[in-house]
Amino acid sequence: MEDCIFCKIVSGEIPSNKIHESDHVYAFMDISPISKGHCLFIPKVHAEKMHEVADETLSEILIMIKQVINAGVFENYNVLQNNGIIAHQEVKHAHWHLIPKEHSDEGLKLEWKPNKEIEQTRIADKIRANLLFEFE
Amino acid sequence: MEDCIFCKIVSGEIPSNKIHESDHVYAFMDISPISKGHCLFIPKVHAEKMHEVADETLSEILIMIKQVINAGVFENYNVLQNNGIIAHQEVKHAHWHLIPKEHSDEGLKLEWKPNKEIEQTRIADKIRANLLFEFE
Repeated sequence: MEDCIFCKIVSGEIPSNKIHESDHVYAFMDISPISKGHCLFIPKVHAEKMHEVADETLSEILIMIKQVINAGVFENYNVLQNNGIIAHQEVKHAHWHLIPKEHSDEGLKLEWKPNKEIEQTRIADKIRANLLFEFE
Repeated sequence: MEDCIFCKIVSGEIPSNKIHESDHVYAFMDISPISKGHCLFIPKVHAEKMHEVADETLSEILIMIKQVINAGVFENYNVLQNNGIIAHQEVKHAHWHLIPKEHSDEGLKLEWKPNKEIEQTRIADKIRANLLFEFE
């Protein structure tokens, strides 16, 4: 897509520190890393959010991330994918972060506030009903 | 694996609010959600960390998450997978969180501190060298 920085990285118009590539996925080092080894995995074909990425691309992504984890010999790490501005998505081209964490004071820091009062029944029913509609 | 709570959920020994299932993946609502619709995707075969999960399982996971995003009609969401205690992994059976975020004051909150001083060259060289050794 025109004016998409990640599309320009895939095409080579903008340089990147490429580490891996498959038919549908391109991987490179993050230039604003939050830990050593922080890298990004993106679909070669533009899609803004994860649910807009083609299945054949999605099926390759985690396998490629696993290969990079093994190649980097990472023991502790987070894999994060953000969709939507309110969910911390900064570039509007779907991307997966691999964030190694060698020490507890680096890398991804989360504020995790579980709340057992959140009503899950209705949304679970909706998901099941729509899945049934779509796949059976 | 004996004494693994997620293995017991897959086998039915511990009940869960199941929403989806494929040959290798099981999906259910999180009982300690951080937002409405927060759910988990786990390999049916035990593996502690993502890089220990079989490729045929990894290839199904994001496709199943996509199906649930579409079924739940989620617009803004995070997909997160944690590996290792220092990286916030709480259950030692690999799992992917799908965390919808309808409002900016709910769901996943991140502390994101990029640091352009982090040295990425050597780790990128190591990843490329090991990938080359493994795949060519």
